[in-house]
Amino acid sequence: MKLEVYADRMSQPSRAVIIFCKVNGIDYTERKVDISKREHLTPEFAEIHPMKQLAAIVDGNFKLFESHSILIYLACAFPGVADHWYPANLFKRSKMHSVLYWHHSNLRRAADTYVTNTTILPALGHPSNQQAAAEAEKLLFSSLSKIESFWLKGDGPFLLGRNQPSIADLSLVCELMQLEVLDEKDRERFLGPYKKVQQWIKHTRNATSPHFDNVHNILMKVKEKLKNKPLMEANHGGALDIQKRLRSRI
Amino acid sequence: MKLEVYADRMSQPSRAVIIFCKVNGIDYTERKVDISKREHLTPEFAEIHPMKQLAAIVDGNFKLFESHSILIYLACAFPGVADHWYPANLFKRSKMHSVLYWHHSNLRRAADTYVTNTTILPALGHPSNQQAAAEAEKLLFSSLSKIESFWLKGDGPFLLGRNQPSIADLSLVCELMQLEVLDEKDRERFLGPYKKVQQWIKHTRNATSPHFDNVHNILMKVKEKLKNKPLMEANHGGALDIQKRLRSRI
Repeated sequence: MKLEVYADRMSQPSRAVIIFCKVNGIDYTERKVDISKREHLTPEFAEIHPMKQLAAIVDGNFKLFESHSILIYLACAFPGVADHWYPANLFKRSKMHSVLYWHHSNLRRAADTYVTNTTILPALGHPSNQQAAAEAEKLLFSSLSKIESFWLKGDGPFLLGRNQPSIADLSLVCELMQLEVLDEKDRERFLGPYKKVQQWIKHTRNATSPHFDNVHNILMKVKEKLKNKPLMEANHGGALDIQKRLRSRI
Repeated sequence: MKLEVYADRMSQPSRAVIIFCKVNGIDYTERKVDISKREHLTPEFAEIHPMKQLAAIVDGNFKLFESHSILIYLACAFPGVADHWYPANLFKRSKMHSVLYWHHSNLRRAADTYVTNTTILPALGHPSNQQAAAEAEKLLFSSLSKIESFWLKGDGPFLLGRNQPSIADLSLVCELMQLEVLDEKDRERFLGPYKKVQQWIKHTRNATSPHFDNVHNILMKVKEKLKNKPLMEANHGGALDIQKRLRSRI
């Protein structure tokens, strides 16, 4: 039976897993779990992932969740995946593990908390936690600074100075892409100072073209609608659709 | 040159790495980095770990940080380490990865934030973040509940139903051990309802005896001193030493 990927493209880990499959020619079926319709809370999805989050995969009898562990599994289980995505060399692989674990406590935590509390919740008219947003802002700047000065030091354009992308590049760049829904000035305030980070996003996008843009399409539509129609002022028509999409983020 | 482990035993990831080395007979030199003396902020330590956290290792020319990536590296690099610590089988290994990534966004985040804001900061007379503590309390209960009902389901006494411990058991149990410094009733409030979790802690301790207790000795001393001498009431003598130890946690 073909690999099944349970995903909602509004979730950044889902996007990373889907792009990885497409770029590496992994034959899979995308099972959409629409978080805005609370499909992740159904008993059917609890059979796939008891903790009710995305992404998750089913490969034959094997079920797995947590996007980093999925990406590592796919890189190891499908023989066509090039070594640069998850190197066999123990030293290179270990360094990649350290980026992936660092990501969880830094960039992921920061970007998600900031975007949710400054953009998603206000757009839906829900109360947000300003203290959490302020702490996330600090952590986001600090994470970007560490990517720029440490993880991207070296000659190559990718993390750890590599010349080709790894699962860490894909995961972290998909995380950063959610900043697209911020107010343009706010996004520029975060990314503007970090030239290497900007170049790295472009390189990762190019290396996974055209899948990167195709899979991010839904996020770009949300970005455009947020820019053109502040939701609290246009609570009808297209705004309803965008509200539904945003609800999948909280 | 012998493996060097840079650690402060007041940090739970440091304890996990040290216990792993001792249990598996890995020959190493422990380099104490006293966080209470801000030794992790020195230029010398920045050469080892530019992000100034513990644990970190140096193995010949190879430097590595993030405790999960260190544990995986040690399990792979030292041939005497038994397979159950980090199974070669892709399916078993992938499930273990999912526990380790889950840990970062759940138990680690919850336990650390709760203990810091309810115990460490007040004991030092510093202001604490009550909203963060309340959110961490919820996440801690939810994490314990998931360990009890999901990660510990199955026949064996260890995570994922195994009969022998893995690096995930060691890492998560070391994390939970920091609850020892809480007020006894508060600790009981968290762990009391989770009988499997209590048994799992005992099994992990027994499987790594006597190293587990030896390495946790410093934490138990802190626990006793906090119990006998609330720091804000006895700001002298033994309390100064304990304050110094606690400062290494913030």
